[in-house]
Amino acid sequence: MKEGKLELQTPDEAETVFYEAFKRCDAKVMAALWAEDDVVCVHPGAGVLVGHEAVVRSWTNIFGNAHPPSIKIDVARRTRTDDLAVHLVAQQMGADTQDPALVVATNVYRKYDAGWLMVEHHASLVQSETRNQTLQ
Amino acid sequence: MKEGKLELQTPDEAETVFYEAFKRCDAKVMAALWAEDDVVCVHPGAGVLVGHEAVVRSWTNIFGNAHPPSIKIDVARRTRTDDLAVHLVAQQMGADTQDPALVVATNVYRKYDAGWLMVEHHASLVQSETRNQTLQ
Repeated sequence: MKEGKLELQTPDEAETVFYEAFKRCDAKVMAALWAEDDVVCVHPGAGVLVGHEAVVRSWTNIFGNAHPPSIKIDVARRTRTDDLAVHLVAQQMGADTQDPALVVATNVYRKYDAGWLMVEHHASLVQSETRNQTLQ
Repeated sequence: MKEGKLELQTPDEAETVFYEAFKRCDAKVMAALWAEDDVVCVHPGAGVLVGHEAVVRSWTNIFGNAHPPSIKIDVARRTRTDDLAVHLVAQQMGADTQDPALVVATNVYRKYDAGWLMVEHHASLVQSETRNQTLQ
């Protein structure tokens, strides 16, 4: 990896970097992972953040207020074409506690000349009363 | 359109069909819009539904319990490659009421031989206390 620039060969590699940065509260790596294009991010319960600056600032603020979280992830589905990938990920937040929260995230990665970067993260909290049931 | 089969030329066309079916509570069109592959759907506050049958059944149940909703949409961002498209959409639900709810949805469309079909819908409610602010 060059200083300040990530060169990631696959969407899975980008996703590993994302969750490692999340777990370590590493805003610098997070900034390098997000593309400079018109990226978007939706945190649980929140509205749409547009643009690299707003998105990275939101992560910096989250990291500033939090202890490094324990996160266990399970990729429910990968959709991949040559230069765009969409992963639907179940995130168990506080995985080492008695009562972890379940968050579902759609992560979108795009291939640029130097490799794969993140262009969207859309996360939503699974309400506990619906966690074990669907709408059926 | 052939009976029971949609032939949609663009992701925008698929998205128009999705929201028209949503507004009209039309489960038959919704079933025809979703791909037969390993599709996924996350309703607000809910967990992951996987597969055409579970996804379409959830929409059928939603439609069975609801009056046709008024929905006003605003596409915040489109990411498009040759055969995959990701749209981040702000959905104002109950747009004709005094207190509409704001839902953010990531909609993913994939190009098949016959045209574009829906492969993911991930929706989350914007909590009113965060609606006018970001995490900064």
